[in-house]
Amino acid sequence: MLVRVRTAVAHLVAGLGPGPGGGGGAQPPAAAGEPRPGPGPAFCRPAFLQLTPEELRRADDHTGRAVQSPRDGRRRLPWSTGYAEVINAGKSQHNEDQACCEVVFVERRPSPRRCPPSEEGPREPEGGRKGFYFHYWALFDGHAGSGAAVMASKRLHLHICEQLRDLVDILQDPSPPPICLQHEARAGLAEPSRAPLAEDDGEVPNDALPRFHLEKEVSHESLVIGAIENAFKHMDDQIERERATQPVSGGCCALAAVYLMGKFYVANAGDSRAIIIRNGEIIPMSREFTPETERQRLQFLGFLRPELLGKEFTHLEFPRRIQPKELGKKMLYRDQNMNGWAYKKIEEDDLKFPLIYGEGKKARVMATIGVTRGLGDHDLKVFSSNIHIKPFLSCFPEVRVYDLTQYEHCPDDVLVLGTDGLWDVTNDEEVAGVVMEVLTSYEPNDPCRYTVVAQELVVRSRGVLKERGWRLANDKLGSGDDISVFVIPLGGPGSYT
Amino acid sequence: MLVRVRTAVAHLVAGLGPGPGGGGGAQPPAAAGEPRPGPGPAFCRPAFLQLTPEELRRADDHTGRAVQSPRDGRRRLPWSTGYAEVINAGKSQHNEDQACCEVVFVERRPSPRRCPPSEEGPREPEGGRKGFYFHYWALFDGHAGSGAAVMASKRLHLHICEQLRDLVDILQDPSPPPICLQHEARAGLAEPSRAPLAEDDGEVPNDALPRFHLEKEVSHESLVIGAIENAFKHMDDQIERERATQPVSGGCCALAAVYLMGKFYVANAGDSRAIIIRNGEIIPMSREFTPETERQRLQFLGFLRPELLGKEFTHLEFPRRIQPKELGKKMLYRDQNMNGWAYKKIEEDDLKFPLIYGEGKKARVMATIGVTRGLGDHDLKVFSSNIHIKPFLSCFPEVRVYDLTQYEHCPDDVLVLGTDGLWDVTNDEEVAGVVMEVLTSYEPNDPCRYTVVAQELVVRSRGVLKERGWRLANDKLGSGDDISVFVIPLGGPGSYT
Repeated sequence: MLVRVRTAVAHLVAGLGPGPGGGGGAQPPAAAGEPRPGPGPAFCRPAFLQLTPEELRRADDHTGRAVQSPRDGRRRLPWSTGYAEVINAGKSQHNEDQACCEVVFVERRPSPRRCPPSEEGPREPEGGRKGFYFHYWALFDGHAGSGAAVMASKRLHLHICEQLRDLVDILQDPSPPPICLQHEARAGLAEPSRAPLAEDDGEVPNDALPRFHLEKEVSHESLVIGAIENAFKHMDDQIERERATQPVSGGCCALAAVYLMGKFYVANAGDSRAIIIRNGEIIPMSREFTPETERQRLQFLGFLRPELLGKEFTHLEFPRRIQPKELGKKMLYRDQNMNGWAYKKIEEDDLKFPLIYGEGKKARVMATIGVTRGLGDHDLKVFSSNIHIKPFLSCFPEVRVYDLTQYEHCPDDVLVLGTDGLWDVTNDEEVAGVVMEVLTSYEPNDPCRYTVVAQELVVRSRGVLKERGWRLANDKLGSGDDISVFVIPLGGPGSYT
Repeated sequence: MLVRVRTAVAHLVAGLGPGPGGGGGAQPPAAAGEPRPGPGPAFCRPAFLQLTPEELRRADDHTGRAVQSPRDGRRRLPWSTGYAEVINAGKSQHNEDQACCEVVFVERRPSPRRCPPSEEGPREPEGGRKGFYFHYWALFDGHAGSGAAVMASKRLHLHICEQLRDLVDILQDPSPPPICLQHEARAGLAEPSRAPLAEDDGEVPNDALPRFHLEKEVSHESLVIGAIENAFKHMDDQIERERATQPVSGGCCALAAVYLMGKFYVANAGDSRAIIIRNGEIIPMSREFTPETERQRLQFLGFLRPELLGKEFTHLEFPRRIQPKELGKKMLYRDQNMNGWAYKKIEEDDLKFPLIYGEGKKARVMATIGVTRGLGDHDLKVFSSNIHIKPFLSCFPEVRVYDLTQYEHCPDDVLVLGTDGLWDVTNDEEVAGVVMEVLTSYEPNDPCRYTVVAQELVVRSRGVLKERGWRLANDKLGSGDDISVFVIPLGGPGSYT
């Protein structure tokens, strides 16, 4: 069991301390087209790895690319979760991926109506605090610096906790969530408008508001989804704010899995990926957000707000750059309403660079960035211009829900989270193959088996160093990117605590 | 085989003649919140029904609700397609659904480089015209008048034809479509930039433009999709234009299936639905576009362009109307980035009416319209206000492709197109059940079997008139809406001509 976060507020307002051994002011290389970032939060590796300074140096070595996992004999991750990571082959100074795994206690926010302890006698003993736990695993894939990824890895779960604090009573009550809360809202506090529960301590009862005929029923599940969505937004806002006092370099994709009251909530903003492997079957738990998958949203924004495109970009998509001498000819294009292609006569305005350009891993927004959702990137501009890219990026995740209670899981059923370093070279079926292959060679109750799976996934995606670089078993190029993987068991031997 | 459209241009510029017997100046009842429309195009039923005036009167009778189908002994629909329709139970004066089924010849547009016939001798004989056929079936579900639906049913296939004319050579050439056409664009004409085909007559050869490294390959299929998408747009523009000379009342959902070169392209804008039933399996070929399914697009537009909301609407969604006395309390809401719900403190601005409001069939945009894509509705305004709704509606369809050559189809495999009158009371599985039940009771080569399926689907969705209105077999309320259904066989006995 990892550190249990008692109250989130103190952490949220405190600054970030230095990591457990990272090179403090190390300056990550600036990506082309981006302002050179300042040092930002200290570089580090995930706290749960408990790396010694010597181990950290090895983890940070681009030539050896040693795979890192929680060590035997040290603290184990909840549910015997497996984890492994490896640094990139030289594309950035440090490993820009970050990871976090926590069990977080969400304490009910004290009611503003309750009298302070001094007048009412001592508060409830700590063991009697009202709230619930959630389990949390997250991967952050940084770009153009480690700052945003490091900060998000230390804070996102606290923001989720903060959003859930208002919901402690509501989520534990089986009746539908109240549409309107009874008390007047004060400083981010909320109280449900319902009759007090037996163990309640002083709630004002529901005054039975007259309800309109049309009233949408909102599920508990959708409140958790909303809490996670808003937590991502608050995390992004915090990164933006903290730039005033310390540089926070770059941005990051974020993939977070929250286990709460029998359900997994998998939130994805970026191009990491989560899949469940259950009885050999693959269940996608996320989709990637890239210039290609979000083309229409981005084009729509560029169309409605052309000032965001500067005078350099057109919201139309073309299959290639147009040359000035082609003016007046007909060329293939796609508008924001279209999925197909058609020909249009080339006009002066079409000579601008397309907002979305390139294919697959090379697709870019404004020729700059290859992912369209994530945290940070507030300072990201188009190379040698004053055009901001952030308005086109979204910090909101898509949240998918998996109800763990709807199916009896065996010890070989897992949820795999991986950054794109994994998925770029190893597809869903290959990952499922490795999972099944490794797990069957270990006893079902061996707590190491999920770590071995994670290591094997990382090794097979990294490859082996040969004369012509890192090579996979089939001699294709291995992933030169940072690679990080969680393998989370969904059924035994982990008792879900 | 139905009327073959030789050249589309003449029809496109001509006005609409009166229908084959509809009550010329009949005024459909105006929906609440909409300006009372003028007469618009004459009301009629689909030409392929070949109704006599007496039959038309029966079809237009709300009390009998007689099911209409192409009569035995008259012209048969292509592929022995089945069709049936029934008028609503009184919600509008006429049946506001319309249907069209055509086989359309797409003639290659004459090259501007070719000399006129008078100088070069006679043109090719008509039999040698270059082009191809496509098959076309479409349903239009009108609202607030028949005008838009009638006009679209007579013209949409001509717009599709027009869009495809530029692609005749390109689609028949197996090599990838050219990114840029060689000739300068003139008056809507296009020429591919490639070496002339053997049978070509005077094309200028490709001058081998230097290509950039990044060049997206565009498929033939996506050109057809783009052509259909733009045809919907041109259809909508035409409806808008023709309002200057004749009132065109209301708007319509449009669902069109185009069979071209071995593939079905199913284009849907609205809440009609298409499914394929193949070997008993259901393959969805469309999705519905409603305030609920398009919530985020609409909210995003309202957020970016608040002036479109007047001062009456908020882009936020709330589960019910807020009362002024609730100001300052916390209420559930959803923003355009969210799928989940969260609480927010109610502010003055939140007392406005939500842009999207209501659930299921009662969901409305600006309290006015329950579908978010379709044709027409250019004059639609919020009741007693000057707020236009059209900017929130999209005329662009989603096009799904089904490759008929990838699977060996049996005579019981069909594509079913239906307006919401069908799907509101009969779900996909029930439709598949009726299809299989009816088809097995007829010989595979009986050309009437698909018509009987269509009739059965309509009858089972309409129900039987009892004391307490139209009732289904299970005594639930039948559909009081107009119902129209095509049942298109995908394999034998129809020879695909």
